[in-house]
Amino acid sequence: MAFFFTPKKIAIIGATANPRKFGNVVTENILSNKDRQYDVYLISLKKELINGLTPYQSILDIRDNIDIAIILVPAEAVEEVVDECIHKSVKGIIIITGGFGEIDQKGKQLERRIASKCNKAGIRVIGPNCVGILNQDIGLNASFILTPPRGNVSFITQSGSFGAAVLYAMKNEHLGCSKFANLGNMVDVSFSEVLEYFNHDPNTNVICMYLESIPAGREFFSCIKRVIPNKPILVLKGGKTVTGMNAASSHTGSLSTNYQLLKSAVDQAGGHMIEYIADYATALKAFAYFPIPQGDRIGIMTNSGGTSVLFSDQAERFGLKLANFSQNLITKMRPYVIPLVKMVNPLDMIAGAREEQYYHVTKAMLESDDIDIVVGCCVITPFLEIQWDEHYRGMVRAWNETDRKKPMLPLLVFADNFPQIRKLSEKEKVTAFYTPYQAAYACKVLIDRMKYLKKIKKEQK
Amino acid sequence: MAFFFTPKKIAIIGATANPRKFGNVVTENILSNKDRQYDVYLISLKKELINGLTPYQSILDIRDNIDIAIILVPAEAVEEVVDECIHKSVKGIIIITGGFGEIDQKGKQLERRIASKCNKAGIRVIGPNCVGILNQDIGLNASFILTPPRGNVSFITQSGSFGAAVLYAMKNEHLGCSKFANLGNMVDVSFSEVLEYFNHDPNTNVICMYLESIPAGREFFSCIKRVIPNKPILVLKGGKTVTGMNAASSHTGSLSTNYQLLKSAVDQAGGHMIEYIADYATALKAFAYFPIPQGDRIGIMTNSGGTSVLFSDQAERFGLKLANFSQNLITKMRPYVIPLVKMVNPLDMIAGAREEQYYHVTKAMLESDDIDIVVGCCVITPFLEIQWDEHYRGMVRAWNETDRKKPMLPLLVFADNFPQIRKLSEKEKVTAFYTPYQAAYACKVLIDRMKYLKKIKKEQK
Repeated sequence: MAFFFTPKKIAIIGATANPRKFGNVVTENILSNKDRQYDVYLISLKKELINGLTPYQSILDIRDNIDIAIILVPAEAVEEVVDECIHKSVKGIIIITGGFGEIDQKGKQLERRIASKCNKAGIRVIGPNCVGILNQDIGLNASFILTPPRGNVSFITQSGSFGAAVLYAMKNEHLGCSKFANLGNMVDVSFSEVLEYFNHDPNTNVICMYLESIPAGREFFSCIKRVIPNKPILVLKGGKTVTGMNAASSHTGSLSTNYQLLKSAVDQAGGHMIEYIADYATALKAFAYFPIPQGDRIGIMTNSGGTSVLFSDQAERFGLKLANFSQNLITKMRPYVIPLVKMVNPLDMIAGAREEQYYHVTKAMLESDDIDIVVGCCVITPFLEIQWDEHYRGMVRAWNETDRKKPMLPLLVFADNFPQIRKLSEKEKVTAFYTPYQAAYACKVLIDRMKYLKKIKKEQK
Repeated sequence: MAFFFTPKKIAIIGATANPRKFGNVVTENILSNKDRQYDVYLISLKKELINGLTPYQSILDIRDNIDIAIILVPAEAVEEVVDECIHKSVKGIIIITGGFGEIDQKGKQLERRIASKCNKAGIRVIGPNCVGILNQDIGLNASFILTPPRGNVSFITQSGSFGAAVLYAMKNEHLGCSKFANLGNMVDVSFSEVLEYFNHDPNTNVICMYLESIPAGREFFSCIKRVIPNKPILVLKGGKTVTGMNAASSHTGSLSTNYQLLKSAVDQAGGHMIEYIADYATALKAFAYFPIPQGDRIGIMTNSGGTSVLFSDQAERFGLKLANFSQNLITKMRPYVIPLVKMVNPLDMIAGAREEQYYHVTKAMLESDDIDIVVGCCVITPFLEIQWDEHYRGMVRAWNETDRKKPMLPLLVFADNFPQIRKLSEKEKVTAFYTPYQAAYACKVLIDRMKYLKKIKKEQK
């Protein structure tokens, strides 16, 4: 797999200067990295300059050895250029062109024939019908999607455009990408192989998957079992229902895998099934910003009773537990809240609570042996000269002073478009959640991971 | 109820010039309306000027008759000023001050005594322990929350700060508020009375509720049964679970109403139970921007297979139906999509689809007798010189040309922070949804409402 993600020599077959063709988009994306450590060779039947470069007429005209060939010619011309790639002994081929097995039986036969030829020649194939791959570590965008910021999340997705949309959500949350692979019709390179590669990739901390069908189920499940002890895997399945499965079959041309089977296998392996796409961003934020907690006892403070009630509802639905406050912890928090406040969990500090209350209470909880995770609920209060980001500031200050050793999740209800909140997040490199559901879901994935790691540690003894 | 929402003379007892006191926030909010058609009288024991006005020492010093008195003095002084309000024969009292039944038994006795005195005097009471009320139609913000934009949604909420947070979400979606009431400990004025008032209010099109407990269940249910034929009601319940109910009991001091009982009663009455707070905004967008559909057949187009698969999954989970495309509709759409496209629902126009395809296909669906609701899925495609808002523009153009007669829901995956999208929404006064779940939920509430209205129409015959 490594040559796909860290190629030294790349050939683009079907490069073009026409900005209305995918052959141009991929070429421009690959050439956009001015510090690239890889060589790029353009192949086009037309002789016009592309980005200042003269294209070759055929891959066979190139003297150097080629690691990967990216194919963007029309479907009917693909087999011929694949034959040339075989002749040239490239290591891998990425067929971006669509119009194969996802369309009809004829397309299926064609893609199988191509796969079989390459297989005999020892050449690996990604695609056809895909958006391509990215490796942000070396600044390689060998795809037609937007280049995301660099980070530690890696992707394998059966829907390219959908994967691209998730990158939009991540960008919005300051989450970056390490590697991205859209495998399209998967005539050769499988989910498991890319997963295995990500497993040994030092820049990948978390793996996200979108899939509709798993052709080699057993191989896939034994693969995720090997990976999950090292890295969390988030799996979103398209085609969970009959309606969805019908839509999926016309999408990638393959029969949808049974959802319940997949879910129980992923659960058993210790992975995380994602029900709603928005949960991707939530789970990624949890893993990117917080350490895995030591236990499952959640301590909550709030300036809005309703918010902590709704958080508690979501928490119970996920099977989470609220901590009991010890006398010791109560004694520590008491001086910082007004007399009206009842010393129970969730601790409702009432609407007038300010930075100092949030700071001291968050700190007391973070330092307490009774609490493993702190959730700071807050509705921004536009009164009493309270600054819009001061509750958040108080929580973050306490978190910093305790060396960020425990997860501390700010739940700032519907404050995602407040510029002050965005600014503080960026400055302090912290995150926040904007609905009770999001905060509870983030707690859930952290606690699930903690329980899983404890379980395998026990089994290893 | 009318005198609470359209008072002519308002007394603020506990007004102050100190910006760190709620008595100041409420005073400033009420005085902030420079075109106000109501008179305001400030009462304060201190003689300092407040916003340029000299306060009265007591409500009894005012010569005019007072419609409503808003009480902001400390809890221990409330009973005394209530006695003065009774003496003055005000019509209604709003006690914003907290520290009553939500705290302890003593507070409960005190609030009951106050309620009983007022009841004997024929004076109505909202609160105590509330943020106040708003009526945007006359620019009256008699609360300490931020003034929202004017619109047609009215609120009754048991959690003031939580209600305020929902207003943030609405503002972000260009949804405005007509009236807002936080009833706090509800010693007198009930949900049902405010509901009944909203029922006859011409500026209220949709009613949102957040509640934890319903003291007079039977009255409440017969009330919503009367209102729902006229206006949709969205109900969010805090304290659905044991953990949530415990949190609620320390919040408003009342025992939580059983969730299942409430849910089945609301469902039976034709109301909409809201499971997640983010669903409020989604449902409100659906009712604010779309007509009620004539039927339940959904037509879908997409440039991203994965997105329409995920939408189909969510749709089936909500019990929704995808339309079958008739030969006639297929014939109309065929010229506008590339040959690779399979003419099935969802119609996957593949990644290169542009404004013209979206326009023609949306229009064909909107004009077809086979389709009641159109969902235009789209992942923004940053290539082929495609403009970021052009798919959306195409859909909106078709919608405008068909006089917006059917619901047309754009599903622009994770595009909520794209400035081009925001700009087009504002300019065209249209909305969009950003995840498959949101779009499916919006379809669901519209279809539920359609079915309910058909059912009662049938019953009336």
